[in-house]
Amino acid sequence: MSRLRACVLGATGIAGQEFVVALQRHPFFELVRIGASQRSAKKKFLDAITDPGGKVNWFPRETLDDQTAALQVEDAAQMSVDGIDVVFTAVESDAAKLLEPRFAEKVPVISTASAFRCDEDVPVFLPAVNMDHAALIDVQRKRRGWQGFITPGPNCTTTGLAITLKPLDQAFGVDKVVMTSLQAVSGAGRSPGVAALDIIDNVIPYIAKEEEKVERETKKILGRVEGNTIVAAPIAVSCTCTRVNVLEGHTESVFVGLSRAASLGDARSAMEEFGSAFLALGLPSSPKRLITVQTDPYRPQPRLDRDAENGMTTTVGRFREEPVLGGVKYVLVSHNTRMGAARGGLLIAEYLVKQGYIERSK
Amino acid sequence: MSRLRACVLGATGIAGQEFVVALQRHPFFELVRIGASQRSAKKKFLDAITDPGGKVNWFPRETLDDQTAALQVEDAAQMSVDGIDVVFTAVESDAAKLLEPRFAEKVPVISTASAFRCDEDVPVFLPAVNMDHAALIDVQRKRRGWQGFITPGPNCTTTGLAITLKPLDQAFGVDKVVMTSLQAVSGAGRSPGVAALDIIDNVIPYIAKEEEKVERETKKILGRVEGNTIVAAPIAVSCTCTRVNVLEGHTESVFVGLSRAASLGDARSAMEEFGSAFLALGLPSSPKRLITVQTDPYRPQPRLDRDAENGMTTTVGRFREEPVLGGVKYVLVSHNTRMGAARGGLLIAEYLVKQGYIERSK
Amino acid sequence: MSRLRACVLGATGIAGQEFVVALQRHPFFELVRIGASQRSAKKKFLDAITDPGGKVNWFPRETLDDQTAALQVEDAAQMSVDGIDVVFTAVESDAAKLLEPRFAEKVPVISTASAFRCDEDVPVFLPAVNMDHAALIDVQRKRRGWQGFITPGPNCTTTGLAITLKPLDQAFGVDKVVMTSLQAVSGAGRSPGVAALDIIDNVIPYIAKEEEKVERETKKILGRVEGNTIVAAPIAVSCTCTRVNVLEGHTESVFVGLSRAASLGDARSAMEEFGSAFLALGLPSSPKRLITVQTDPYRPQPRLDRDAENGMTTTVGRFREEPVLGGVKYVLVSHNTRMGAARGGLLIAEYLVKQGYIERSK
Amino acid sequence: MSRLRACVLGATGIAGQEFVVALQRHPFFELVRIGASQRSAKKKFLDAITDPGGKVNWFPRETLDDQTAALQVEDAAQMSVDGIDVVFTAVESDAAKLLEPRFAEKVPVISTASAFRCDEDVPVFLPAVNMDHAALIDVQRKRRGWQGFITPGPNCTTTGLAITLKPLDQAFGVDKVVMTSLQAVSGAGRSPGVAALDIIDNVIPYIAKEEEKVERETKKILGRVEGNTIVAAPIAVSCTCTRVNVLEGHTESVFVGLSRAASLGDARSAMEEFGSAFLALGLPSSPKRLITVQTDPYRPQPRLDRDAENGMTTTVGRFREEPVLGGVKYVLVSHNTRMGAARGGLLIAEYLVKQGYIERSK
Repeated sequence: MSRLRACVLGATGIAGQEFVVALQRHPFFELVRIGASQRSAKKKFLDAITDPGGKVNWFPRETLDDQTAALQVEDAAQMSVDGIDVVFTAVESDAAKLLEPRFAEKVPVISTASAFRCDEDVPVFLPAVNMDHAALIDVQRKRRGWQGFITPGPNCTTTGLAITLKPLDQAFGVDKVVMTSLQAVSGAGRSPGVAALDIIDNVIPYIAKEEEKVERETKKILGRVEGNTIVAAPIAVSCTCTRVNVLEGHTESVFVGLSRAASLGDARSAMEEFGSAFLALGLPSSPKRLITVQTDPYRPQPRLDRDAENGMTTTVGRFREEPVLGGVKYVLVSHNTRMGAARGGLLIAEYLVKQGYIERSK
Repeated sequence: MSRLRACVLGATGIAGQEFVVALQRHPFFELVRIGASQRSAKKKFLDAITDPGGKVNWFPRETLDDQTAALQVEDAAQMSVDGIDVVFTAVESDAAKLLEPRFAEKVPVISTASAFRCDEDVPVFLPAVNMDHAALIDVQRKRRGWQGFITPGPNCTTTGLAITLKPLDQAFGVDKVVMTSLQAVSGAGRSPGVAALDIIDNVIPYIAKEEEKVERETKKILGRVEGNTIVAAPIAVSCTCTRVNVLEGHTESVFVGLSRAASLGDARSAMEEFGSAFLALGLPSSPKRLITVQTDPYRPQPRLDRDAENGMTTTVGRFREEPVLGGVKYVLVSHNTRMGAARGGLLIAEYLVKQGYIERSK
Repeated sequence: MSRLRACVLGATGIAGQEFVVALQRHPFFELVRIGASQRSAKKKFLDAITDPGGKVNWFPRETLDDQTAALQVEDAAQMSVDGIDVVFTAVESDAAKLLEPRFAEKVPVISTASAFRCDEDVPVFLPAVNMDHAALIDVQRKRRGWQGFITPGPNCTTTGLAITLKPLDQAFGVDKVVMTSLQAVSGAGRSPGVAALDIIDNVIPYIAKEEEKVERETKKILGRVEGNTIVAAPIAVSCTCTRVNVLEGHTESVFVGLSRAASLGDARSAMEEFGSAFLALGLPSSPKRLITVQTDPYRPQPRLDRDAENGMTTTVGRFREEPVLGGVKYVLVSHNTRMGAARGGLLIAEYLVKQGYIERSK
Repeated sequence: MSRLRACVLGATGIAGQEFVVALQRHPFFELVRIGASQRSAKKKFLDAITDPGGKVNWFPRETLDDQTAALQVEDAAQMSVDGIDVVFTAVESDAAKLLEPRFAEKVPVISTASAFRCDEDVPVFLPAVNMDHAALIDVQRKRRGWQGFITPGPNCTTTGLAITLKPLDQAFGVDKVVMTSLQAVSGAGRSPGVAALDIIDNVIPYIAKEEEKVERETKKILGRVEGNTIVAAPIAVSCTCTRVNVLEGHTESVFVGLSRAASLGDARSAMEEFGSAFLALGLPSSPKRLITVQTDPYRPQPRLDRDAENGMTTTVGRFREEPVLGGVKYVLVSHNTRMGAARGGLLIAEYLVKQGYIERSK
């Protein structure tokens, strides 16, 4: 198979850079074009992320290839879709509202933006969790008259929560969730992002709009396709989202009410065994396990566990019985800029290639 | 009134130093003797907290008086109770088990240790919350044949939780509590304490024995005296306690189920008005408000709010309806080494002086 | 004396807020007007520092008075000087170039901006260090035809360095200085400021333009008035300025070459005794000591020492012989947003009031 | 070649664990025995680093092999040298004084401890810098009547400094050095190590004995073999060593006086080209470059640069002319627990194998 031609929009931000670096030497995709704001247009990519004082604002741990560094950035607002088979977007929500439909008319758009997550014909995929929601892609195409489609990934905080709830829901039925997140600063991006002034020796107990997103997206992701839409799962979800002095890796303290009794061992096993069919596909960005269970009571810790399996596994620990809701409680760590953003989207794209939803455009 | 003669045991640790500094120039108490481990005995207090390399391990923000610095430390295990009217102890639990009863035979012992918190004739006082538990003091004296008594304060994480639950319980009935704490490193003390290696860019999702303490103590503190003991409040409490990269000030994300419906405004008002009778006593260590409500959605933050009212008020914010448990949710910040340790104990001692439980020994 | 009417320009930033809070209840000055960018104009001051989401961007430790909170912000670019006796400015350098001369035509301007620091008729005052440079005020007035004048304070990193070099220079002659700074994030302000992403678990070894400022300003401040200008001190100064993960308080590691031999004791004494004539004036913002010498080898530390004397003293420790340059080496901590910014400027203003340079305008 | 049988002493500490992990799957060495304090003896290695509460104190980024985890720890004080070809020790200095000579009687001892660094017949090797000091090995063997020998590596702060001074010294002659270090907390180990309480929002301006070590070791390492000893290089070195809130990677701000004029370009080139003969040996732990020069003015940064080439290269940036000493100034980042500790020692051991100094014992 010759590789599919990919474009990244919003390539200069943190999530965009993660798309760019993940597409370097990818077996399915070849990064052929890069779009960003007008300010960056016509610059080489490396120059576009270098500020006037010479500071290179490169975020990923991996090195930027010379070839990618030399790609000329285009003005996303003016770009044509010619010669592109798939678009990865990591733009802000407002820009996504304008840009993504224009590209989706012709080709699939895999997005990290929240703009279309709530639309009833738009699936919000999470690897192994809701691949049956792909049925909505045809609905979306037909209704909107598009050749392509839009599939946004969930909010980075939803990611770890919904992945760990899914096996519990399958096995025992989840009916109530109370969650407090301790989120990393990289989730806020760089501009403006979280100021050091605000987070040193501190916790910020509020992230605007985050709690609503987590509550709504979790129910949609765990919902089921019915006719031409998704019926949200009948789960009561309540969250408090906080920011802590951590670079990367969201920690979540989760309390779950189950409708059928589950021993701690059963709950743990359900998580460990989760997603075997999806994992068996052997997709390039796939971890070996979607959920890694830690037995050390002091784990998971964001610094120690976020990079496990290249940031693509969710690490879970501290399994205990949950007396108030009647179920289990646990702590998870999920990599917010890997599985929770670009690489999670890329894994979905790989799946959609395998399933024939993304193919060479004519 | 001539001042009562106070002794501090365990004076070299963090909580002990906070007792020492709070007793400097206190209107009710005069610090006359200091006890610590044998290693520190016979040294001047300042020398006892100075390591061989010249580093002074002084923790409180306030300055140590020259006079206090010059007090000679005694071996706590060998000290007599002569010339002392009240003992403040900040020793480890094991040491408390041995030392505190010996002193309590003669004089009141105000403690930060957990050793006796579970004993059925021992009140665990929290200012304004359960002063009626003082009825147990006489039970304790009679049963144990002591002239004095022991009153430990609660765990520092229980403190903010129980103070904020009390007004809700009074007004609306609390029946369920789910709480995740984000605790400061000073709560672990210095030796061994939390290693920088472990907490930089990190969260530690476990604090040994902490969750059990919070769950048990909260129910005892909110319980009611019945006959010769305290009947725990019939509240289901479930906690996850974590450590974050914050110097001081515990943050807690609290979800509360109420038995009677409460508007957010009513819940907020109950908190703001809490403890007026206690506050009206005008005790020296008393804050002006026991609970301070913040309306900025980004508050409370430990660095910005911990020192409000000298660390003696609990700051609460982010009031929202709680759909899962049926009640309210909020975030609190409580100063773990002030109200949550020595100064909270001192405020109780001041109350007990006013009520005649602590007086000049014959 | 009725109080002089003060205006603060750039009042919404960190240094501006420090001016505002320091002028609340000041014996010499009354804050009557506030200017900021057009964006803030016509808003109440509290509203101007509150973002749309309700977050109050208030930086100082002290509380904002209701009266000050209610002051209406004016557009600095359009403000008249009517009814103002003195202007405190904390605007960016570019804005200062335009605004400050306009005000200085009529009234004294005390600035934290760097715009005019290099002008030959502009003194860069540092308390007790170079008050004789006040002779330039008349030169400046005459040359520029102004009734007022401009006196910028030095860069916050220069402040601690020049204050500690002055007593050494007086007593032993300083000829060489090698300095590495470890600067706090508050020095960069909030917008953009230092991103948490960049400084967590990190050091940034470069601060644009900082080293040049420190080298140049230090020589000017230690220079002497000769005719109508200041002749820079003949000192070779070499710096590396770095940013560390500290909220406030710049730490500097200083190596000094002296032209006359000095024992460590003599050098320490020179520092401890520095500025007695200035201190004897008893100005409202003056510390009791300009330099505080610590003997604990583990001090000074920014978190423990920055707030000494309300941030107005420079704390020095680790005195050792300096074999390479022939002199002494030491470490200092100076509060960058107190003595190193607004309050240092205010202390100078107080001095200039006493000397008659600032008075009620007609 | 069958692999040489290696033993690690002090295997439970941070540096010891780094030796252990670096020896897993090593082409030259096979880890066959592990020694530690009596407390750990007879436990499996994994159990020896697990505390009673189940917390696994494993520091390296790499995973511990099951096979290594199962090795039984021996009491280092009682171990025989049988079946061992080389000993790697990472014990405290006091223990090293007792243990290392006992092993060195029979086999080579590669150490991270400071105990013997000052002995005149003991080379302190730094890769590519002073391999000619190997001439002292025979001197040491003969004088002490040992079959083996001891070669300690330098202090972790000396490492980056001496590596970067060497090419300058070779090319232009170094005569003066002024250095301020900003050291990571991992350099202090875990027990006691640096307390979070002490370093959050702070700098500690003193590390006991560190400055003396750096000054003395730098001169020895840059010295030359003369007869049976090393004549220290005639360089004046002056340091201030500080601790900053960084997990790993020491940053050093270096000011160098040169005896011959060097352009910045020449100085930079000397560093970039340094050690080509050593690198050409292609040793398993060798980086591709001993010194990596960064041109981004905001680099090197410890978090971004410490892990370059697996922590085995020293990253240098901010080259500027140094006017006070007459030479160059720069900033370096060196990985203190990789090149600066166990892996630097291992690289030396690899070199000594190649040169025939370490071989299969009979």
